[in-house]
Amino acid sequence: MVKAAVMGAGSFGTAYAKVLRDAGTEVTMWARRSDVAESIAERRVNPDYLPGVRLPEGLHATHDHAEALGGADVVVLAVPSQSLRGNLGAWSGDLPPSATLLSLAKGVEVGTLMRMSQVIAEVTGAEADRIAVLSGPNLAKEIAVEQPTATVIACPDSVRAVAVQRACATGYFRPYTNTDVIGCEVGGACKNVIALCSGMAAGIGLGENTSAAIITRGLAEMTRLGVALGARPKTLAGLAGVGDLVATCVSPLSRNRSFGERLGRGETLEQAQQATHGQVAEGVKSCSSILELARSYGVEMPLTEAVHSVCHEQMPVAQVLVQLLGRRIKPE
Amino acid sequence: MVKAAVMGAGSFGTAYAKVLRDAGTEVTMWARRSDVAESIAERRVNPDYLPGVRLPEGLHATHDHAEALGGADVVVLAVPSQSLRGNLGAWSGDLPPSATLLSLAKGVEVGTLMRMSQVIAEVTGAEADRIAVLSGPNLAKEIAVEQPTATVIACPDSVRAVAVQRACATGYFRPYTNTDVIGCEVGGACKNVIALCSGMAAGIGLGENTSAAIITRGLAEMTRLGVALGARPKTLAGLAGVGDLVATCVSPLSRNRSFGERLGRGETLEQAQQATHGQVAEGVKSCSSILELARSYGVEMPLTEAVHSVCHEQMPVAQVLVQLLGRRIKPE
Repeated sequence: MVKAAVMGAGSFGTAYAKVLRDAGTEVTMWARRSDVAESIAERRVNPDYLPGVRLPEGLHATHDHAEALGGADVVVLAVPSQSLRGNLGAWSGDLPPSATLLSLAKGVEVGTLMRMSQVIAEVTGAEADRIAVLSGPNLAKEIAVEQPTATVIACPDSVRAVAVQRACATGYFRPYTNTDVIGCEVGGACKNVIALCSGMAAGIGLGENTSAAIITRGLAEMTRLGVALGARPKTLAGLAGVGDLVATCVSPLSRNRSFGERLGRGETLEQAQQATHGQVAEGVKSCSSILELARSYGVEMPLTEAVHSVCHEQMPVAQVLVQLLGRRIKPE
Repeated sequence: MVKAAVMGAGSFGTAYAKVLRDAGTEVTMWARRSDVAESIAERRVNPDYLPGVRLPEGLHATHDHAEALGGADVVVLAVPSQSLRGNLGAWSGDLPPSATLLSLAKGVEVGTLMRMSQVIAEVTGAEADRIAVLSGPNLAKEIAVEQPTATVIACPDSVRAVAVQRACATGYFRPYTNTDVIGCEVGGACKNVIALCSGMAAGIGLGENTSAAIITRGLAEMTRLGVALGARPKTLAGLAGVGDLVATCVSPLSRNRSFGERLGRGETLEQAQQATHGQVAEGVKSCSSILELARSYGVEMPLTEAVHSVCHEQMPVAQVLVQLLGRRIKPE
């Protein structure tokens, strides 16, 4: 029986732990907060992050990371992208030496401009073929209620990819394998920024035609960045690119989309943050590092620039959108 | 001053006539129904097809096709795809011999399996470089209220593409030029079928993860068909592919999406048709001809097959979706 440690008990980590358990995998979750670990272990719920969802029998949970990691074949990294390095540092002595390290985190690290798989490689010393990423149109709340969902498991070692695939394939959760880690990571990081932009447009009152144009241009700019970094365009045209982008840009369940809508309605970053229980949407942070990365490769990302100037340069949403949508007419 | 004839006074034809007029083009619309022509010419409204929208001053309208066509530089073909051949036959003696023929119709002709530009070439004898198509995320009701909208004008002759682009570029309507007529037509035809499928899934109660997976697979299958017919993949990754697909699949304003939702909720084709004023959604008709075209080129289109089997083989939506979403796990 495959043994998985799910490190992080946010909404996506919890939903994915449920998937693994439903697929017959032995799962122990690690939660940063001991009360969350206790609630999951004893009452089978995670009321703060996945309220109303009954978690499966036999899903273990602990606040002790070494206990969670012990003997794991797959270590699922489900902490926020900007905390991954710190967490890995604290855990590294207890990581099983041959386990597959599967990243659920999406983003580009501020400062180092590293993708999550690069952070994992640097901190743990693991070779690339042990590092996998999961990405796709995966709204956690829908997975938790067993809505049919497809995703991509990418790993340079296809044997490991297939092992992870089997460990999490259920009737409602369908993982496809891929070897293009870079493409999946670029899609996963960029989509949050585009969703902020799409939300801003909706918040200011623009319609579906505009939203679809933003999604299309967002896909183009994330593909440009991906290709510059070595991704295959086909990955960005698949579930981890278009698929994730569409789900994140159109769903009211998407935090980045909703956060952008607040900004579009005229709230300040602080007001939007207060209204969302102090959380800043992932794209607010990663737009800076993505933009910096893009510039260092000479890649133009006008939507990411626009989001950055709203979030970090006090530019009004209306002005930024006019600039964005009012560029000179030219061939596509 | 450029002179345009807009042949057809449905919602999209009317919205596009407004765009052309707002861009400073001289426009005469032809309406099949004399009362519609009269309403547009005298009261500046088209209450049956674009209620509540005030049409611009100087927008001419007539029930006499020869009057509309006389002296036109651009003839805009805005009739339903399956009626295009018949209409063109009736008009062909009056088409100005050097005008650009711009198709707004989306579909594949039943029986001949021709794209609209091929129908135009066959009936009028016009050379390919006079034939252009318009395609993109263009919900008519949003264009009519001047929501920012981008579109693609494709023509093998880029001078004509630019002329049409200039004739319809306004502050709220932004046309991009392209030479890939085939790609634009395949995207425009296939998206209606995928939107039916997306609507069926929503109607039966599936969520955004499923919808995004359907859109992604829909994009893959329309791209396969396009490439087999000679389209450039990049066109399908742009406004006329992804963009149009997303707008059509997610908007409640989309007729194909709404029609699919009705089927998903258990209505029969007849009930859904009755509820939509006797109109059958475009994708219901074109799924058969698209599927036949795909088969003749050896292209697999599982979503189109699924829609076809619901619409024309009395298969229950639930059964078809289970087959579609429950295929064996495999590499992406």
